[in-house]
Amino acid sequence: MKDIEEIAINAKKASLVLAGLSSDIKNNALDRIAKALVDNKEFIISQNEEDLKKAKILLENGEISQSIYDRLKLSDAKFNDMVAGVLDVKKLPDPINRTLSATKIDEDLELYKVSCPIGVIGVIFEARPDVIVQISSLAIKSSNAVILKGGIEAILANTALVKIINDTLSTIVEFPDNVINFVKSREDVNNMLSLDNYIDLIIPRGSNKLVQFIKGNTKIPVLGHSDGICHIFADESANIDLGVKVAVDSKIQYPAACNALETLLVSEKIADKFLPLLKDKMFENNVKLRGCDKTRKIISDIDVATDDDWKTEYGDKILSIKIVSDIDEAINHINTFGSGHTDCIISESKQNVEKFMALVDSAGVYHNVSTRFADGFRYGLGAEVGISTNKTHARGPVGLEGLTIYKYKLFGNGQIVAEYTGENAKKFLHGRIF
Amino acid sequence: MKDIEEIAINAKKASLVLAGLSSDIKNNALDRIAKALVDNKEFIISQNEEDLKKAKILLENGEISQSIYDRLKLSDAKFNDMVAGVLDVKKLPDPINRTLSATKIDEDLELYKVSCPIGVIGVIFEARPDVIVQISSLAIKSSNAVILKGGIEAILANTALVKIINDTLSTIVEFPDNVINFVKSREDVNNMLSLDNYIDLIIPRGSNKLVQFIKGNTKIPVLGHSDGICHIFADESANIDLGVKVAVDSKIQYPAACNALETLLVSEKIADKFLPLLKDKMFENNVKLRGCDKTRKIISDIDVATDDDWKTEYGDKILSIKIVSDIDEAINHINTFGSGHTDCIISESKQNVEKFMALVDSAGVYHNVSTRFADGFRYGLGAEVGISTNKTHARGPVGLEGLTIYKYKLFGNGQIVAEYTGENAKKFLHGRIF
Repeated sequence: MKDIEEIAINAKKASLVLAGLSSDIKNNALDRIAKALVDNKEFIISQNEEDLKKAKILLENGEISQSIYDRLKLSDAKFNDMVAGVLDVKKLPDPINRTLSATKIDEDLELYKVSCPIGVIGVIFEARPDVIVQISSLAIKSSNAVILKGGIEAILANTALVKIINDTLSTIVEFPDNVINFVKSREDVNNMLSLDNYIDLIIPRGSNKLVQFIKGNTKIPVLGHSDGICHIFADESANIDLGVKVAVDSKIQYPAACNALETLLVSEKIADKFLPLLKDKMFENNVKLRGCDKTRKIISDIDVATDDDWKTEYGDKILSIKIVSDIDEAINHINTFGSGHTDCIISESKQNVEKFMALVDSAGVYHNVSTRFADGFRYGLGAEVGISTNKTHARGPVGLEGLTIYKYKLFGNGQIVAEYTGENAKKFLHGRIF
Repeated sequence: MKDIEEIAINAKKASLVLAGLSSDIKNNALDRIAKALVDNKEFIISQNEEDLKKAKILLENGEISQSIYDRLKLSDAKFNDMVAGVLDVKKLPDPINRTLSATKIDEDLELYKVSCPIGVIGVIFEARPDVIVQISSLAIKSSNAVILKGGIEAILANTALVKIINDTLSTIVEFPDNVINFVKSREDVNNMLSLDNYIDLIIPRGSNKLVQFIKGNTKIPVLGHSDGICHIFADESANIDLGVKVAVDSKIQYPAACNALETLLVSEKIADKFLPLLKDKMFENNVKLRGCDKTRKIISDIDVATDDDWKTEYGDKILSIKIVSDIDEAINHINTFGSGHTDCIISESKQNVEKFMALVDSAGVYHNVSTRFADGFRYGLGAEVGISTNKTHARGPVGLEGLTIYKYKLFGNGQIVAEYTGENAKKFLHGRIF
C-alpha cells in the first residue's frame, strides 16, 4: 500500500494529463470498462458474496444495520444497472472544453471562459460497491483523478472493481496511470485532509458526523450534505388528495433516503380536513406520527412533537406534523429548522407557489410533487456523485457539471495594460461573442 | 457595537428577504446610493483626510508601506470612479432569477435550474475605502447580505461610507435592514470563522498568511487567492519584440499586483536573442533580474535564482528567469511552482498555444498578452470582489456571477416516485426545455 501523500501527488500528476484527453479516448475507456465488468462478472459477484458472509455476522451481532447489509448486495439487477450506468455516462455530452462565454475585449483580444476539470477529488462513501463504478465513470468522463475510500464492509468487491477498472485503463496508451485511486483505512482519510496542495475537493457521503468532522479538519473545499430534513407545506388552497398522496410517497417510498419527508406543515385553514386523511394513509403504511398541540386536537392518538423533532432527520417511518397560521410561518419554519435540502409546497395558489419557490432557501423547492424526486438520475443528470446542500459551487444533486470548473483563455497579439490606462487610454469593447 | 453572532443572525434574516427583491428595487437602491455619495462627498473626503493624517504618522514610523498609504487616498478621480462604479453595477444584468437550464422530466413535471443569491458573505480587505462601495454594490445587485471588515487605516472613511449606504437603504421600504454590515476588529474576524450556520462564504483579500489562517480555522467555504506567481513562457517560435513588450508590461505596470509577472521562462532555442533585449528593457525600468545558470551565461551581470525564487511572489521590481528545453518543461515548471493565477505563452505555434492553454492548470491562460489583464473590469465583469485561485465555485476575477448559486425548482401535479419505480415504471422524458 502506497503512502497517501504519494498517492495524492501521483493523482495530481495524472489529473494534469487527463485535462488534455479527447472525448473519444475517455468514451473508449468507458466502453472498455463496461465490457470488462461483464467479462469479470463471476469474479466480482464471488467477491461480493465473501463480503456479504462477513457482513452477515456483523448484522447478527448488531454491528451494522439491515439497510447497510441490503445495500451491500450486488444483485443481478444491480450488476446490470451498474454496467448500464457506465454506458449512460459515456453517452452524456463531454462536460470539459465547453465554451461557457466569450468576450471580444478589443480587436484581436478575445477572452474565452472554458470548462475544465477540477483536478483531484477525494470521495468517501459507505458500503454499496456499485458506487465505485459510478464515481469512476463520472471521474473519467469529467477528466478528474479520484481518491476513493469505500466502506470496509464492501472491501473485497471494491478491490476487485478498482482492479478491473485500472487494468482496463492501463490498456489505453493515452491514459495516464493513477487516475482511479483506492485507499482502505480511516487513517488514510484523516491524512488526506492535510493534503490541500494536491487534493482539490472532498466529497463525503456519509453521516452528518463524518461530514462535520471533515469540514472542521481540512482546508480543502468540501461538497456534500450533512442532514436531509425535508418539508412539505400544504397551504389553504391545497388539493388535499394530491397532498396526501405526495406526502405518503415522500415519507415511505424510501424512508432512509436523505430526500425523504421528515416534517409536514399544514395551514390551520385546512388542517381539520387534511390531517385525518393523512393519518389514515400514514397509519396504513406503519408511519408513526408526532404532532404539535394543535395537531393533536385534530388527530389525538399520536405523540407530541417537541422542538427537537423539528431538527431531526428520522431516516425512518416517523413524521412530525405542525399546524401553521400562514405561508410566512411555514417558510420561516423551513428556513429555521430545515437543512436546505428539498422542500415542497402543496398549493393551488400561484402567488403562494411563487413566494415559496423564491423565499425557501433550499437546494430544491418543489410544487405538488414528491421530495423523493431530488436525485441526479431523476433530474436527468445521468448519474450523481452526491447531493449538496452547500451554498457554493454546486447545489442539489451533483452530476458531471459539478465536477468541473472553468479557466479563462485570453488570446491577444501583444496587448499591454499600459495602453489601456491613464490619459488617452484605449477603450475596451467588451462585445459578447458568445 | 453589536455582537458578531447577532450581526450574522440578522444578516442571515436579511438575506432571506433579499432573495425575493425585484431588479427595480435593487437598481433604485444603487441609484440612490450613487446620489448620496455625491451629496456627502465633502464629509467622506474629510473623513478620509483624517485617516490619512494618522496613516502619515504610521508611514513615517515604518508601520505601513508607501503603497498602503497611496491606496488609502480617496482622490477626486478615485471618488468619481467609485460613484461611477455603483452606476456601472446598476447597469449590469440582474444575476438573480436567471434560468440556467430547464428540463421536461415528464408531462406536467418541469425542472428549472435558477440562479439565486448565496446568502451571507464575509469580506475581509485592506485599506482602500472605495472597496466598501464596490462590494456593497455587488452585494445589493446580487441580493446577498455582507459582513465587511476593512483595514483599520481607513476606519473613518469606511464608517462614513457604510453609514451613508445604510441611511440610503433605510429609505427604501422594501429593503430589509442589516444587508450591509461592518465590523471593525480582528477579533470580530476570528469570531466570524465559527459562524458557519449563518455565514455562507468568506472572501479574504489580503496576505497569503491571512488567507491560509482563515482556511485553516473555519468550516465556511473560502474564496480567494493566496499567491500570485504569474509566468510568461516564450517558446522557440516567439515574436521576440512582442514577448519583451508583454513581459515588461506584465512586470512593471503595477509590480505589487497579484497578476504581475514573477518568473519568465524562455526556450533555450531563442534565449540568446531574447534575453539581452529583455535585460535592456528591464534595466531601463529598474527591474532587478535573477537567473538560472544557463541564463547567467547569456546575461552575466545578474544574481543567481534559486529554487526559492521559483516559489516567490516578489510583488516588486524583481524578475526571475529560467531557460527551459521545451514546452513540456515550461508547463511542468508552471504547474509545479505557480499559484494557478495567470500564466502566458508567447508563441507563433498554434500547436504549442493549444497545448499550453489546455495543460497549464491556472485560472487564466494567456497567449501573447500581458498577465496584467487578469482583472474583473478588464474582463468585462463590471467589477470584482476579488480574484480566485480556488478550483471550485469561481475561478479568476470574480464578479456578480461568482456571488450567486442556483436552486432547482420542480413543478408537478402530484407525481410520486413510486410510479417511476419497479415493474411497469413510468419512463422519464428528460427533454430539454432550455
